[in-house]
Amino acid sequence: MTKIVLKAGERVDTVVENGVEIIQSPEVFSFGMDAVLLSHFPRLPKRADRLILDLCAGNGAVGLLASSNTKAQIIEVELQERLADMADRSVKLNNLEDQVRVVCDDLKNTLKHIVPSSVDLIFCNPPYFKVTDQKILNDKDALTIARHEVMTNFESICSIVQKTLKPSGHFALVHRPERFMEVIDTLRAYKLQPKAIQFVYPKAGAEANLLLIDAIKDGKSGGEKFLSPLIVYDSEGNYTKEVNKIYFGGK
Amino acid sequence: MTKIVLKAGERVDTVVENGVEIIQSPEVFSFGMDAVLLSHFPRLPKRADRLILDLCAGNGAVGLLASSNTKAQIIEVELQERLADMADRSVKLNNLEDQVRVVCDDLKNTLKHIVPSSVDLIFCNPPYFKVTDQKILNDKDALTIARHEVMTNFESICSIVQKTLKPSGHFALVHRPERFMEVIDTLRAYKLQPKAIQFVYPKAGAEANLLLIDAIKDGKSGGEKFLSPLIVYDSEGNYTKEVNKIYFGGK
Repeated sequence: MTKIVLKAGERVDTVVENGVEIIQSPEVFSFGMDAVLLSHFPRLPKRADRLILDLCAGNGAVGLLASSNTKAQIIEVELQERLADMADRSVKLNNLEDQVRVVCDDLKNTLKHIVPSSVDLIFCNPPYFKVTDQKILNDKDALTIARHEVMTNFESICSIVQKTLKPSGHFALVHRPERFMEVIDTLRAYKLQPKAIQFVYPKAGAEANLLLIDAIKDGKSGGEKFLSPLIVYDSEGNYTKEVNKIYFGGK
Repeated sequence: MTKIVLKAGERVDTVVENGVEIIQSPEVFSFGMDAVLLSHFPRLPKRADRLILDLCAGNGAVGLLASSNTKAQIIEVELQERLADMADRSVKLNNLEDQVRVVCDDLKNTLKHIVPSSVDLIFCNPPYFKVTDQKILNDKDALTIARHEVMTNFESICSIVQKTLKPSGHFALVHRPERFMEVIDTLRAYKLQPKAIQFVYPKAGAEANLLLIDAIKDGKSGGEKFLSPLIVYDSEGNYTKEVNKIYFGGK
């Protein structure tokens, strides 16, 4: 077994469903339910000659979780060295060096690493929050960069997605419902047509707090589908059957 | 009690929750669950000096159902004489002549009957389907006109809504998810900002088949809310608790 060194404050977490082990650090970056749901959301290209890109990859959770359900090559692009390093060590920890590659670079340089119009599926769990004041802009710690649009924004992401996806390639993303209109407007401005949308609700009777979108490069407008609602907790505060299945497998 | 004459093929249906009796005719027009859900969707202006408009009113179901929860004046605008006549007789059947008025005219003439920028809330259960072939355009029976955009379309409706609503007045509508993008684009083109959206799913695990939108005239963009999903039938095929409450009242 490969020997992987954990750094201070790090731990290894496993999503039981597929057994992939992921190095986390609560101080720097931990993946959340959004990453788990996103990794399960789109239909994955399966063949080894297909290419999946994970933008704003953080500690690589989305691509790592998806890896067990496809033979496609996966490239994770993450700006922050500390997080890319965690992702890289998780790749080694799971012996996925032949399938998953971590690129530490600014998202805007993605085309230095990827052939244009070559990607079958792009995942993105982007920074959710707009930069609303100068304080956030100056506070460049890892969590702030992961959560706020300090170093990139949704428009820059869509621009890169449009350039790297194959024609009719898929862009699967997670975002917050309060930015829904802006998100779909930006997607469409970059000819990424939302085709399937799923809202995630913390519990029955509550407003949605996450949204998953599957958009198709240069897809036609109209005929969009709103998939069955994903409700996270039941009335007793336990995961619903559907979320349990995503985390722990089974039917 | 007022004596109301039923015509051939008509029957009187009641939504138990509020006891309003509505004249229906399966051959010509029957209200569906969409009308019931729409009538319960927005917060109603309550005072007698407020004004509610029901566009594409059909047999008047939405306004009639809403009438029991408000003292506001309600005007129903329906193009088809046969349907407006049913609505008018339902108004009399329920002794609502002081609160509900039926106008039989083309929606585009609404401003002949309503002062501009005077309405607090507009309901609309519009024709859902685009006219895709000449056959539909020629087939001007009552059901075709109610279901297809033969005599009006969503853009014409939004144009009238923008002119008749008060500033910050609400537009509550029901439509089909596959036209969602077009619906929100058209709303926003007429400065009707979608603020709360609810999807309706026939059962858990199914795609949405209806959508309810509450838009605000000249409202700001951003901060849109996606309300808790409304699921119609449970796994045994009975109404869920939530839909039961809408139809039959209680908690």
